[in-house]
Formats: sequence, C-alpha cells, structure tokens
Amino acid sequence: MPMIYDRNNIFAKIIRGEIPCHKVYETDKALAFMDIMPRGDGHVLVIPKAEARNLLDASPEVCADLAKAVQVVGKAAKEALAADGLTVQQFNESAGGQVVFHLHVHVIPRFEGVPLKPHTGQMEETEKLAAYAEKIRSAIS
Amino acid sequence: MPMIYDRNNIFAKIIRGEIPCHKVYETDKALAFMDIMPRGDGHVLVIPKAEARNLLDASPEVCADLAKAVQVVGKAAKEALAADGLTVQQFNESAGGQVVFHLHVHVIPRFEGVPLKPHTGQMEETEKLAAYAEKIRSAIS
Repeated sequence: MPMIYDRNNIFAKIIRGEIPCHKVYETDKALAFMDIMPRGDGHVLVIPKAEARNLLDASPEVCADLAKAVQVVGKAAKEALAADGLTVQQFNESAGGQVVFHLHVHVIPRFEGVPLKPHTGQMEETEKLAAYAEKIRSAIS
Repeated sequence: MPMIYDRNNIFAKIIRGEIPCHKVYETDKALAFMDIMPRGDGHVLVIPKAEARNLLDASPEVCADLAKAVQVVGKAAKEALAADGLTVQQFNESAGGQVVFHLHVHVIPRFEGVPLKPHTGQMEETEKLAAYAEKIRSAIS
C-alpha cells in the first residue's frame, strides 16, 4: 500500500484554519487541540504542522519536536484536570488503529478506576471541550 | 503522590546488564528490547538510558531522543514482520496504565483483523522472542 499524504485530511484543514478547533497549544512546529470524540475527559490530540502521514514517513526531527510538544501538553493536561495519570497513544495505518491520516498523538488524562471510553463516535459538547481547552491552556502558560 | 525514580526497577537493571533482554536496538541514549509479555507478535519496548520515571519527569531532550529511537524501531519492526500497521502506547503512572516505573514506549506491529492480545501476564517463549529480535535487528542494520 502506498503511503500517500492527503493534504485534504481533516487535521491539515485544522492547521490551515479551514476548520475550527479547541486549541490547547501551538508552536511553529506543533499544534494541540481537543479530540471532539474523547475517550476520556481532557483528551487532547498533538500534531506536527509538517506534512506527515504517520510515524512511518515523518522525519526524525518532526518526531522529536512532536515528542516535546506531547510532553508539554501531557504535563499541563494532567495538572489542569488533577488527573492521576496519563495514557499516550499513537496509531499508524488502519491496522494500527489510525483513522485520520495526519500524524497525531492522543494524550488522555486518566483517573483511578475510570476506564477509557470506547470509540463510540459520539461527539462531546462544544462547551465542555472549550472549558477543558481553556483549563489546559492556562496550565501551560 | 511523589514521583520518585526507583533505581532498582526492572528496566534499570536491564540497562545495567543485571537482567538479560532480547535486545533490538541500542544507542548511547536509548535501548529497545522485546516485551516478554507481548500483546502482539514483535512487541518491542523502547526506553531511554536516562533515569526517568515517565513522561512527567523526563527532560524534553530525553523525550525527543526517545521519539527518534521509537521511529527507528517502529519502522524496522513493521518491515521485519511485514506488518500492516503499528500501535504505539506510552503509559504514565498506575492510573495511566504504567506497571514498570522507568519511562518506556510500547511499539506493537499490527496485522489486519488481529486485535491486541489482552494483558494476560503470560510470558512468551524465549525462542520466539529471540527470533523476532533477530529479525528486527536485521531490518535496522
């Protein structure tokens, strides 16, 4: 299967500002925003601005910069939500669990005794997402 | 809860060579070896040599170097096993799924239609682990 980067994937549109997001963090290299179908409260996606389908075609520098952004966002999300832990997931290709084909890392605050929600495809309320984004942004700055 | 790094955790012992592992990749900063309780064929763990409990206390440079090692190992594991995809997971604190408290990233080759095995605590046969390690090492070099 060819590994093609589709410039019209939804995250590319978010980077270009063509689709809105609940922004959490932004640098010249990375962007973080709330997952609209969260598997837990405060579920954030962290992506590189560079065009990369996933870990398999990204440059090593893109991976390194992305990891730094994941750490900033993860620490802030855990603090902002007073979470007990953090689960980080990154999926490559359909068999690996990938649905949107722009490299992204799931950062999910975790709470004792609360399992990850299943992938229901259910959208979270906008007000809730906005509130979490605001909380996590505040913890970063 | 204080975030203490225990120098006697099992991965620290593997780094010091006090406990053997099926080594896949090693640099001055990172080490990768087969997970002995794999959730799928070719399941590798990638760890920094630096002392870090998890993503929450590691330095940004440790995170960046680790991401580069994860990519090298992930690409090689997918190629070596002719996998269809790759699932990457990283757990922080017990609530986040962490069991061994030295920062580590799970890199799991994935195959169409094959779900991740549950955490049974079942050890894989040494011969199988050695064979996967050899395959992945060959794909790296």
